[in-house]
Amino acid sequence: MQEIPKPTIRRLAVYYRCLERLEQKNVEKVSSKELSKMLKIKDSQVRKDLSYFGTFGRRGVGYNVKELKEKIKEILGLNKQWSVIILGAGNIGKAIARYKQIEKDNFKVVAVFDVDKRKIGTQITPELTVRSLDELDEFVKKNKPEIAVLAVPADAANPLAERLEKLGIKGIICFAPVTLTCSIPVEYVDITVFFKTLVHFISRGIQ
Amino acid sequence: MQEIPKPTIRRLAVYYRCLERLEQKNVEKVSSKELSKMLKIKDSQVRKDLSYFGTFGRRGVGYNVKELKEKIKEILGLNKQWSVIILGAGNIGKAIARYKQIEKDNFKVVAVFDVDKRKIGTQITPELTVRSLDELDEFVKKNKPEIAVLAVPADAANPLAERLEKLGIKGIICFAPVTLTCSIPVEYVDITVFFKTLVHFISRGIQ
Repeated sequence: MQEIPKPTIRRLAVYYRCLERLEQKNVEKVSSKELSKMLKIKDSQVRKDLSYFGTFGRRGVGYNVKELKEKIKEILGLNKQWSVIILGAGNIGKAIARYKQIEKDNFKVVAVFDVDKRKIGTQITPELTVRSLDELDEFVKKNKPEIAVLAVPADAANPLAERLEKLGIKGIICFAPVTLTCSIPVEYVDITVFFKTLVHFISRGIQ
Repeated sequence: MQEIPKPTIRRLAVYYRCLERLEQKNVEKVSSKELSKMLKIKDSQVRKDLSYFGTFGRRGVGYNVKELKEKIKEILGLNKQWSVIILGAGNIGKAIARYKQIEKDNFKVVAVFDVDKRKIGTQITPELTVRSLDELDEFVKKNKPEIAVLAVPADAANPLAERLEKLGIKGIICFAPVTLTCSIPVEYVDITVFFKTLVHFISRGIQ
């Protein structure tokens, strides 16, 4: 299969979310036009995105919800459980550790680390107690988690990312407001960037 | 000035973050090449993005850090303070209310609302006590906040967004995993989408 561009992958994750909800509501068929309307994505874009993995859609009939959902699930790589560690037990780190939706999507948070002695040993969820960052290497070597969430201050992020890469972590979700220099895949969730983007469009009166 | 596309605006917010850090380190000049390297954005893209508001950069000299930062600040709309309310005092809502970086960027969280009686009246920060959602309309009419953060379950998001639009809210940051139907600007921060996008690239071995 050809390489799918990142904006398309991001939209596939959004289609997936929508198809899950349709399935819960026992909807069997959906057209690209309906998806387009629900997700505010152009109809032509929806059709193009879905064309990356062959055409399920039939003119006038639409896509089979369950089939399309399963196909996207496979393409996104959600058919297995992913093991996640969180670095930083501050507000964001704790929120992610407690975020139930992630677990529903087959991501399992297995450990939370921090350097702050006041946080180490505290309980975040019934299953998760904050560990010292000193235990990181041993934990990763033994448990082989695949994903690390970086919820640490900007200055701490890059050294940690390089350490994680060396330890064999496969990908990073970065909440720290920096660009990482490591060479594994990274998804950036700099919340301040969303606020700043929003106010530009508010100021300009553009949606 | 011409309309700037959304991906460019998002990158401007990232350049801005980088320029702030350079200014703190007393760096006076920066070239597009250096920005490109630090932010892992193609040099040609950096130059194209910055060309939207005239050329400050001089070949071989680069951009004046402070000047460029101020210009981007103005374009993004960060020269004024923005008043923010948070709907939903769950993990995400609380994390945003306590997130200091947002305040540094001139966003001021003025109220947090929830429907859960166990949460109403609890203290989130020394200045913020969770209010009942019943107080929303009166609060917004009186205090005229501009931005609302939706950190509520998916099913609650759309009715709230429409209510907020009617009340005169100018823009929404939506953490709920849905697409909103309101017509004011919205920035979506669906954390599960970032996880799903990441694992696709891990699975495929593509950065």
